[in-house]
Amino acid sequence: MSKLEDIVSLCKRRGFIFQGSEIYGGMAGTWDFGPLGVALKKKIMDAWWKYWVEDRDDMYGVDASIIMNPRTWVASGHVATFADPLVECKNCHGRFRADKIADGITESVTTTEFHNLHIKCPTCGKEDWGDVRKFNMMFATRVGAVLPDDTGEIADKSIAYLRPETAQGIFTNFKNIVDTIYPSLPFGIAQQGKAFRNEISPRDFILRDRECSQMEIEYFVHPSDWETQFNKLLKENHYFLENIMGLPASHLHDYEVPANDRAHYSKRTVDFMFDYPNSTEELMGLAYRTDFDLQNIAKESGKSMEYRDKNTGESFVPHVIEPSIGVERLFLAVLSSAYTEDEIDGSARTVLRLPENLAPYRFCVSPLLKNKPELVAKAREVYQKLRTKYGNVTWDDSGNIGKRYRKQDEIGTPKCIVIDFDTLEDNTVTIRDRDTAKQIRIQISEL
Amino acid sequence: MSKLEDIVSLCKRRGFIFQGSEIYGGMAGTWDFGPLGVALKKKIMDAWWKYWVEDRDDMYGVDASIIMNPRTWVASGHVATFADPLVECKNCHGRFRADKIADGITESVTTTEFHNLHIKCPTCGKEDWGDVRKFNMMFATRVGAVLPDDTGEIADKSIAYLRPETAQGIFTNFKNIVDTIYPSLPFGIAQQGKAFRNEISPRDFILRDRECSQMEIEYFVHPSDWETQFNKLLKENHYFLENIMGLPASHLHDYEVPANDRAHYSKRTVDFMFDYPNSTEELMGLAYRTDFDLQNIAKESGKSMEYRDKNTGESFVPHVIEPSIGVERLFLAVLSSAYTEDEIDGSARTVLRLPENLAPYRFCVSPLLKNKPELVAKAREVYQKLRTKYGNVTWDDSGNIGKRYRKQDEIGTPKCIVIDFDTLEDNTVTIRDRDTAKQIRIQISEL
Repeated sequence: MSKLEDIVSLCKRRGFIFQGSEIYGGMAGTWDFGPLGVALKKKIMDAWWKYWVEDRDDMYGVDASIIMNPRTWVASGHVATFADPLVECKNCHGRFRADKIADGITESVTTTEFHNLHIKCPTCGKEDWGDVRKFNMMFATRVGAVLPDDTGEIADKSIAYLRPETAQGIFTNFKNIVDTIYPSLPFGIAQQGKAFRNEISPRDFILRDRECSQMEIEYFVHPSDWETQFNKLLKENHYFLENIMGLPASHLHDYEVPANDRAHYSKRTVDFMFDYPNSTEELMGLAYRTDFDLQNIAKESGKSMEYRDKNTGESFVPHVIEPSIGVERLFLAVLSSAYTEDEIDGSARTVLRLPENLAPYRFCVSPLLKNKPELVAKAREVYQKLRTKYGNVTWDDSGNIGKRYRKQDEIGTPKCIVIDFDTLEDNTVTIRDRDTAKQIRIQISEL
Repeated sequence: MSKLEDIVSLCKRRGFIFQGSEIYGGMAGTWDFGPLGVALKKKIMDAWWKYWVEDRDDMYGVDASIIMNPRTWVASGHVATFADPLVECKNCHGRFRADKIADGITESVTTTEFHNLHIKCPTCGKEDWGDVRKFNMMFATRVGAVLPDDTGEIADKSIAYLRPETAQGIFTNFKNIVDTIYPSLPFGIAQQGKAFRNEISPRDFILRDRECSQMEIEYFVHPSDWETQFNKLLKENHYFLENIMGLPASHLHDYEVPANDRAHYSKRTVDFMFDYPNSTEELMGLAYRTDFDLQNIAKESGKSMEYRDKNTGESFVPHVIEPSIGVERLFLAVLSSAYTEDEIDGSARTVLRLPENLAPYRFCVSPLLKNKPELVAKAREVYQKLRTKYGNVTWDDSGNIGKRYRKQDEIGTPKCIVIDFDTLEDNTVTIRDRDTAKQIRIQISEL
């Protein structure tokens, strides 16, 4: 098994992540977080929110709807261009992303170009291709009391989309924030929430799913100030990923996107690449977007997106720098950085070396034996005390102590505390460290 | 203006809640949370999660996908019965919920029954009705590389729905939790997340929206134990709403749903009714659902939902008690309980008497004058100190002190701290209480 397969297996075995709708044979591209997965995901998202919003003076949160007015996606360009090249095999009716089954072509491949490559169908082996068509990756739905009329047709004006990114929920609220909070530049608006992409071939566990959670910031700056602020955000994002999320700096690589791969309006984009177990993939992006989005919204809505500087009196449309990260990609980066197989006293073990601030449980409390009421009572006392103080504490009285340690190692609990007969005499407990497996005895009062 | 209109106005003015997609003229039934709204919503949801999941030994969290395998909604009955009676005026083509424009009829009204009532169209005044049709309230979408084929038809097997409730994401993971966590009965599985209902006529601010957040628990019990556990959950939910959310007990009413209004399988359902400013509405529901959902899943999936008791060896399908609450309904209950207009020293003010644990900001720190650098420096010092300790602290140096107090009253900040020239001498500050408007001086070290 590859390391990624080991991680997928651990996720399922210990209740971090299950296949979405597994009981009905699954739903491709969706994943359900189990009890430990929710705990880890929530800690990641809360730490992001604290670092970027609560601990700063220049950030404001929003939580916009997933279903937005469809003009949003006209203005943003998603209706016209958020599409993959789709090709169908006329023999077996298999459907593929043209640029994924042929080498050396891009997303803008044409039918003639593709046919000239003489690719065989990956499923049936025949070469009998239809046209290359643009497949828009937004999920469409219909809003309101829409039924087919007498002709069987449904009015097109009822179409809406599940948002393919959270960013537009920020841009469309730019004026609301400015008009209610009166922030000074530079300032950012942050949002966490679900986004949806109808991937033709979802794959790679939670890396390329159809439903994901995003954490995005639009940071508004004076046009002359973008380079300074870009460099500041670059540093701050590295600090967050390495020091708050505990990702090893050696696995993180800045990729300066060259001009011909950048959006036409962007003067600088840096992709943060991360060494996942099987491949190096984009973990997050930092993009200078100029005033592209606000200008498009001004055009589509007919409303001015100008900001008036209180001190200088200058009026202008702010420029934007966008740090954007997917929760699931970060979740897998955290998990694969923590996942380790090592040996303790000559026997193999799996251990999640999660940072203490992200571990689902900070402590596990156990009585040495579960059938000795006096041990159990004392252990419950310690458990309640720690839980009141720290919140995330688990109780384990199953199996023997060795098995409990292995289980807590696998779910990343930093410290295991065991109450034994000596505890009843001298109020000391055994505290075992996850990473070193070393045990020491300390007073309960020192916990 | 009614009190509800006052609240809506405050929400917009202070950045709690904006109309969804307002910049494009809105999107009916959607609402966007602004900076203060996100803070309050997050505190409500986190307090719920802490009370029901983190502080208990018998609760496990899940976070399932919004897009689920469509068989989920066949098994749950939503495909067949989650529908409202829709009727169209053939003259003006207005569409209405039949049971909302006529008195004394129910959701199961037939075309003949409706026509016999001789209702006039609320829009054009004519009486020229089409048939009463069942309009399913689930938002449908299509998943995968779906394009019309040569006949223009789209395969129906690609249809999926946005979940209309979070509950089914819990039931479908019941076996996953049992097989990975091995919990003992009774135990609960909890979920927070978005749910979608294509309401024909969204209305009443955030009370009847098309996109909402739910917080649901399915509490699994031995069939013989349901009454005891139901009564326990009834008490615990009252405790949560009154003591953690700060809702006045006088505004909360238990409504014992009579047998003929309950689902056929339910032996007891209690709706928690809340006195909102304009009307009394359902805030949450507590329903005994027997083994209805798990049995339906067993039938649809062909997999056993039996649970084996470790102590007695008995195998059976657990019964379920479901506490279910909508975040927006709770948000509005909290807000309308807190909203007060009173008089301070002869002048009228609006104040949000939010519980301290829910207020977006716990403290506001101000320098008396913003153009005195020594006051500003000292105030920043106090601000940083409090923020490190408490997290949610805001800074305000705009306008004069009186205006700042009015603003902080409106957004519910319990304490305002002002740094003045005396502070520089003796390290004391003025601390003003939101509810009484009383000011006292205390040492900075006492904060």
